[in-house]
Amino acid sequence: MDSSTISKPHERLAATLDGEMTAVNELIRTRMTSEHAPRIPEVTAHLIEAGGKRLRPMLTLAAARLCGYQGEHHVRLAATVEFIHTATLLHDDVVDESGQRRGRPTANLLWDNKSSVLVGDYLFSRSFQLMVETGSLRVLDILANASATIAEGEVLQMTAAQDLRTDEAVYLQIVRGKTAALFSAAMQVGGVIAKAPESQVHALFDYGDALGIAFQIADDLLDYQGDAKETGKNVGDDFRERKLTLPVIKAVAQATTEERTFWERTIEKGRQEDGDLEHALELMNKYGTFDATRADANAWAAKAKSSLESLPDGEIRTMLSELADYVVSRLN
Amino acid sequence: MDSSTISKPHERLAATLDGEMTAVNELIRTRMTSEHAPRIPEVTAHLIEAGGKRLRPMLTLAAARLCGYQGEHHVRLAATVEFIHTATLLHDDVVDESGQRRGRPTANLLWDNKSSVLVGDYLFSRSFQLMVETGSLRVLDILANASATIAEGEVLQMTAAQDLRTDEAVYLQIVRGKTAALFSAAMQVGGVIAKAPESQVHALFDYGDALGIAFQIADDLLDYQGDAKETGKNVGDDFRERKLTLPVIKAVAQATTEERTFWERTIEKGRQEDGDLEHALELMNKYGTFDATRADANAWAAKAKSSLESLPDGEIRTMLSELADYVVSRLN
Repeated sequence: MDSSTISKPHERLAATLDGEMTAVNELIRTRMTSEHAPRIPEVTAHLIEAGGKRLRPMLTLAAARLCGYQGEHHVRLAATVEFIHTATLLHDDVVDESGQRRGRPTANLLWDNKSSVLVGDYLFSRSFQLMVETGSLRVLDILANASATIAEGEVLQMTAAQDLRTDEAVYLQIVRGKTAALFSAAMQVGGVIAKAPESQVHALFDYGDALGIAFQIADDLLDYQGDAKETGKNVGDDFRERKLTLPVIKAVAQATTEERTFWERTIEKGRQEDGDLEHALELMNKYGTFDATRADANAWAAKAKSSLESLPDGEIRTMLSELADYVVSRLN
Repeated sequence: MDSSTISKPHERLAATLDGEMTAVNELIRTRMTSEHAPRIPEVTAHLIEAGGKRLRPMLTLAAARLCGYQGEHHVRLAATVEFIHTATLLHDDVVDESGQRRGRPTANLLWDNKSSVLVGDYLFSRSFQLMVETGSLRVLDILANASATIAEGEVLQMTAAQDLRTDEAVYLQIVRGKTAALFSAAMQVGGVIAKAPESQVHALFDYGDALGIAFQIADDLLDYQGDAKETGKNVGDDFRERKLTLPVIKAVAQATTEERTFWERTIEKGRQEDGDLEHALELMNKYGTFDATRADANAWAAKAKSSLESLPDGEIRTMLSELADYVVSRLN
């Protein structure tokens, strides 16, 4: 397929990295099996074959290729990153008591919470085995730190989610944990395995970090402003689930005493009534927090793009730059 | 304290390794903190400070000392092993829906399932960081494989637990996953970090494997034959929870058609009535499965002891040998 005729940058990346992505998918299929416990590939296949965009493994392959890597370890690392991502999704669904993921019933609903917890643990162990096979202690260090940041961010989200004291700094930490840590590690290990100079590894990290943050802020804004047909979610799901995301945090920071009482009742205490979502939207519009949130997402996307400047020019770099535009294009 | 006056071998080991165990406990306390998410040390402290025997980290320290190790990485590895163990306990309690652990309410009861899942993930990541710090790829390989065996064993236990086709081979795999894999890895990494010859590393693995299996078989037998005051459990808890452990598996293997119907109803279908536990005990006595199970546990303990023969003689080796006797002494 000629990648220039494809409109979405991640699809162009997928077309360009087609052979390597096939190898990654094959490795994922091989390693998600278990000789003794057939429940493991059942649960994993349900999630992995639901067809996510495979964005994270693609970032690893792109970073390795960008830095001129010629070996085969980047395929292992890409599978590692997808296994870590899948493991966190399985655990998230238990934590969130979710019923749907990627438009299908979640594993915890189809099987049970036990299966989601234990199969998640298994995939995490499998990812660990894969990265050991690369023989790179630096890669292991990066992914160990990313794993800790992810888990810490999840705990932080759980405890801070309904606490009005959660400010933009805490929000950013949560976003780094739930999204950006794996994006940045995925980029970084691609460069490390290619033995790229330290300045390039640093730039790869910065790109992944900023892209992940832009991606998550955009997601949180779309929850309030998106087209339900495109996002597959109803407007205000986060409000109903009492999630303190950026548009709300910005409105709370400027709230009058009366408005603060409204946020305390609806978010902290979770006592919501008819018309509350509409009032919340009014307050966020009043303080222009949707515009401010959009500006933040755009700024992170711009930071991602500028991080690419010190990296080798070419097709891959162009696509990564377009990908940064794309994650916020739905907002503009 | 003079270790010769202490009667239990693991307490003698603890006294002998006192200084290093203090360093391990200090490292655990330091690394279980989280700058951002105070829920993490709360949950971890609840479990870690409940005072388990710290058997697994002690095995790592003992193996390293036995092989003449002079460095400090064994302390990191001992903390690693305890973190992995604690992480699996947190996830087990969610899976088993347990209410008690080490005589205290479980974390999932005191906080919630979410906290147990996510804090378990965090501790697993922390263990991963600690082992990377040792700089030994061999250690990482051993612990990655042990983690996969543990997770696979847990899934296998979940799916095989109430299936009468579960035979002794599957039981052994489950036991390796839930207990022996971490015992053997704990021993092995102690030898690896000490750069012990391959034959010794192999012997350390064999000792941990056999000790872990003897330990778990003894536990399963004590469920039916133990003194409730000593075990802290009621006789027959495993039967009521429909767990297929070795004494039952041996009775099922020899069952008449009528007896098989009884096991199908009580274990597979879980329809238990008054008098069923008594009948189950009768059947296990009829086929002598308690004696056969005790003989198996003793044989594994003997195998553990004989594995020690190729290792350097001295105080530590004697205590490890006595430890193998001790885990089955409650049965004899």
